[in-house]
Amino acid sequence: MAQQERGNRSRRSILEAAARVFDERGYDAASTNEILASTGLTRGALYHHFPSKEAIASALVAAQSEALVVPDQPVKLQAVIDLTLEFARRLQHDPVLRASVRLAVEQTSFSRPAQTPYEQSNATILDLLRQAREQGEVLPGVDLQEATSTIVGAFTGLQVMSQVYSNRQDLPDRVCALWRFLLPGLATPGMLARLRTAPLPQTAPQAAPQTAP
Amino acid sequence: MAQQERGNRSRRSILEAAARVFDERGYDAASTNEILASTGLTRGALYHHFPSKEAIASALVAAQSEALVVPDQPVKLQAVIDLTLEFARRLQHDPVLRASVRLAVEQTSFSRPAQTPYEQSNATILDLLRQAREQGEVLPGVDLQEATSTIVGAFTGLQVMSQVYSNRQDLPDRVCALWRFLLPGLATPGMLARLRTAPLPQTAPQAAPQTAP
Repeated sequence: MAQQERGNRSRRSILEAAARVFDERGYDAASTNEILASTGLTRGALYHHFPSKEAIASALVAAQSEALVVPDQPVKLQAVIDLTLEFARRLQHDPVLRASVRLAVEQTSFSRPAQTPYEQSNATILDLLRQAREQGEVLPGVDLQEATSTIVGAFTGLQVMSQVYSNRQDLPDRVCALWRFLLPGLATPGMLARLRTAPLPQTAPQAAPQTAP
Repeated sequence: MAQQERGNRSRRSILEAAARVFDERGYDAASTNEILASTGLTRGALYHHFPSKEAIASALVAAQSEALVVPDQPVKLQAVIDLTLEFARRLQHDPVLRASVRLAVEQTSFSRPAQTPYEQSNATILDLLRQAREQGEVLPGVDLQEATSTIVGAFTGLQVMSQVYSNRQDLPDRVCALWRFLLPGLATPGMLARLRTAPLPQTAPQAAPQTAP
């Protein structure tokens, strides 16, 4: 195994272990000792990748951006819908992404970090909405930045609720419901009839996608 | 001062101190010693009201329900809108309510509590939407439970975002934007023209409302 590949595997294994420990104990109560114990790595190897618990948390939060995959879709409003549905599905199955979102919500709930985990989501969705407007998909008078903030903010809250009520099993349904309520205020009537807000078909088997490095 | 009144004041002063300490240090890192230090109460007095840090947190979370004041409004969709706008305004100024919401989001983000802080919001809004439907304000085909979950979930996320970006200063604007996007999928066209989604006029001075008994 090449050194680079070994390094990537170690990094991913630390992030997965940290995701589990943060999940079980919460960020503040978690220690790097616990994270280390379940990786089988040496402390030196851990510090090679991450100098501190905070650095691990930052890398976990960054994993969110990597999970924002823009679907190849000619209808750009459909691309935004599918992006959120795919993100919802990955949240159900990828422990690293789950820990990423939880850390982001917890940290931002208590403090204002220098760089927020929402910037990338905002930029990606705003860009798609601008393309949708150019293609005549969006109602006149809609403020695209406002629409973007509403989508990202509402999604953030829905996944907190879904975690509480169903351990995220109902998250795709909640996201579809959000779209059914939002679209009449966002899409032109002609476009509205063409947009699909049903959950994406499940891909089997449910392998956790690679989000690192 | 009657004993009952003194007791209520002590209880409120503990909740306010806890709200400040949780705000600054986060729930896990906060200690009852710190909370006690800023109240001027004895440890015995603290334990008389709250046997543990968890009990203080539970009381703080419960303060959310007390802040859900149903407006006296003949148009029931307007009552739902005004309820969320008033809650948003109180979140800006009431430290106990702020800590309440943050704790709820943090705790529910990491675990599934037996009783969630969203039950009361859900019940209150669902009841108003049912009255709105009886009065012919709601579009046919709208699932009221789904609408309720979407409103409560979206609000929860918007206040997390608003905390990050503006220390909640833009929360009323974000909530108004949410309503502008949600209402075309919720209200009948005739009702839509009558509903007000501008922020409520500010009441001066900004005294923190009493949320504890």
